[in-house]
Amino acid sequence: MRAIEIDPAGRMRLADHPVPRPAPGEARVKVELAGICSTDLELRAGYMGFSGIPGHEFVGCVEEAPDSPDLVGRTVVGEINAGCGRCDDCRRGDSRHCTDRTVLGIAGRDGAFAEQLTLPVGCLHPVPGAVPPERAVFAEPAAAAFQILEQVEVEDRRILVMGCGKLGSLCARVLRRKGAQVTVLVRRSESGALLARDGIPVVLNADRGFDQVVEATGHPDGFPRALELVRPRGTIILKSTCASGRPLNLAPVVVDEVTVVGSRCGPFRPALDAFARGDLKPEEMIGGRFPLADFEAAFAAAGNPADPARRKVVLIPGP
Amino acid sequence: MRAIEIDPAGRMRLADHPVPRPAPGEARVKVELAGICSTDLELRAGYMGFSGIPGHEFVGCVEEAPDSPDLVGRTVVGEINAGCGRCDDCRRGDSRHCTDRTVLGIAGRDGAFAEQLTLPVGCLHPVPGAVPPERAVFAEPAAAAFQILEQVEVEDRRILVMGCGKLGSLCARVLRRKGAQVTVLVRRSESGALLARDGIPVVLNADRGFDQVVEATGHPDGFPRALELVRPRGTIILKSTCASGRPLNLAPVVVDEVTVVGSRCGPFRPALDAFARGDLKPEEMIGGRFPLADFEAAFAAAGNPADPARRKVVLIPGP
Repeated sequence: MRAIEIDPAGRMRLADHPVPRPAPGEARVKVELAGICSTDLELRAGYMGFSGIPGHEFVGCVEEAPDSPDLVGRTVVGEINAGCGRCDDCRRGDSRHCTDRTVLGIAGRDGAFAEQLTLPVGCLHPVPGAVPPERAVFAEPAAAAFQILEQVEVEDRRILVMGCGKLGSLCARVLRRKGAQVTVLVRRSESGALLARDGIPVVLNADRGFDQVVEATGHPDGFPRALELVRPRGTIILKSTCASGRPLNLAPVVVDEVTVVGSRCGPFRPALDAFARGDLKPEEMIGGRFPLADFEAAFAAAGNPADPARRKVVLIPGP
Repeated sequence: MRAIEIDPAGRMRLADHPVPRPAPGEARVKVELAGICSTDLELRAGYMGFSGIPGHEFVGCVEEAPDSPDLVGRTVVGEINAGCGRCDDCRRGDSRHCTDRTVLGIAGRDGAFAEQLTLPVGCLHPVPGAVPPERAVFAEPAAAAFQILEQVEVEDRRILVMGCGKLGSLCARVLRRKGAQVTVLVRRSESGALLARDGIPVVLNADRGFDQVVEATGHPDGFPRALELVRPRGTIILKSTCASGRPLNLAPVVVDEVTVVGSRCGPFRPALDAFARGDLKPEEMIGGRFPLADFEAAFAAAGNPADPARRKVVLIPGP
C-alpha cells in the first residue's frame, strides 16, 4: 500500500509499505479520509522524534477483524491511544494514560496517512449512518473538546476560548451547547467568521474576569495571556502542548488561586452523537482535499499562516 | 511606637512611627509576637515593591475597637487580606480575592513588625484560651495549609509534600490528620527531623506516581520537579510564589492531564481549632526570638540557608 513515512528529523516521503496485519484483538481499517492536525505539523518540524507513518485523525472502513467479525464492513473512527490492557489505568478503562501505550501516528504505532491502518477493536467506534465521512473525520478533535465537559462544570460559566483553529472552534461550540456563555478571542476577525455567523461572540480583545479560559491557541504566548484574562479562583483549561521552554511566571497562579487543568484526548461517544444529531457540523471547516501523493501541497496548505481561518486539510489515501 | 520600615528597594530600618488609628470598622492591636516569613525575605530582596511596615504573621491583644467593644482585651490573630467590602468577592465573604484589597504588611497596609497595627475587625479571630502565643503566631501559615482541604479531596490520597519549611511541615501534618498518605520530600534529612519523629515518612528521593504533590519548596525548581513526580491525571497544589521567570515546559500538564491548583491564604477557624486541640503544635519550629531592634540579626537567622530545619524566627515588638 502507499503511505507517508516520516523519520525522526521530520523528513517525509511517499513510500510503498506492507499492508499492516492486525495483531490479536486488532482490526485493519481502510482509511477513507485522514485529517492533518497541528501535531502532524509538529512531527514534521522534528519536535517529537517519531518515525513511521504519521496521522491520527481518520475515518475508514473495517476490512479485517479476526476477533470481532461484526465490525467488518462498518465505517469507524478510532481513539488514538492503544493501551497495554494490563495496567491499572487500562483495567479502569483509561488507556489514554497507560504508560506503555502506543499512540496512532504519534508514538510507537503507524498511523492514518496510509491506505490501511490497524488499531485495537476497543479503540474503534462505528460511525452512525447519518454522519458523512467529512464530518466523522473530526471525531478525534471533537472528542478532545468534549473532554472539557468531563473535567470542569461549564454550565452558565463565562468562558473565553482563546484561538479559533479547529480545536478552539469545536471547544466553543461544545461549551456553548452545554450552556456556557462563550466568547472567542481571535487575532484576526476573519478567523472567527464561521463562529460569528452562528451567533458566538468573536472578539479581538478581552478584559480580565472570565470564570474559565480555554487555551487553544497552539502558541506559547497563549498561557501567560490566559493568566491575565481569567478571574481570581478561575480555571484555565490548557489544550495547547506547544507552550514549551518559555520563561513563565507561575506566581499569579498562586496569588489568584487559579486552577490549571491539562486537557487532551476525550470521549468519542458524545462527539459522534453530536455529529449524528447535526449539533456539530465541522466539515464546514475543511479547506482542502489532497491525495496522498500530494502530501507536500497538503502540508503546505495545513500549515499556511496566511490562511486566517486555519481550515482543516484532509488527505484521501484511496485510489 | 517603634516599627520596622521598608522601602521599595527592600532597605529596612527601625523607626519611630505614629501609633496607627483604627479606621471605621477597624481595631488596633498591640503586637505580642510577629513571625518572619519567606514573603518578608522577598520583600527585603526588593521583589515586591512594598513600602511601609512589613510583617503579616502576628498574635496580639486588641486595645481599641470603637465599633466592636467586646473585642477589647482579647488575644487575636488576623487574616491579612482587607477587602473593600463592596465588590462581589467581598459580599460573598471572600476578601482574599478582592481586587481592591490591602494586604497586611505586603500591599497597601502597614503590618506587624511594629508595636501596634490596625485591621478590620472582620479579619480578626480571637485565640482560644488554651493556645499559647507562640503557637497562635502560626495561625496564618497554618490557615494556608488548611486551604488545601478547601480545594481538593485528600483522604486516602497518596500525597507528596515537597519542602519541609514551615509551610511544608504544616501542610504535611494537616493533610495526614485528614487521612492522606503523606510523604515529605526534603533536600537534607536533618530538615525533616521533627516530621520523622512524629512518624511522617521523610525521603530524599521519590518516584513518579503520587496522586497529589504539594509544591512548598519556595524554589523555582520545585514546579518542574513536581510535574515529574505526580501521576497522570494527578494534581499539583502550588504554594510557592517564587517560580518566576524560569523557562518552563507545560506540555506535560496537557499530555498527562495534570491539574495545577494555586493555593494561598486559607481559613483561620480550623487552624485555631487544631491549635486548641493540640493537633498542631508548630511552636516547636521556632528557632529564634528577637526584639524589633535586632531585626538585622532576626532576618539573618530567618534567611540562613545553613539552617537545615529552616526554623521560624519571631520578633517581639513590645518593650
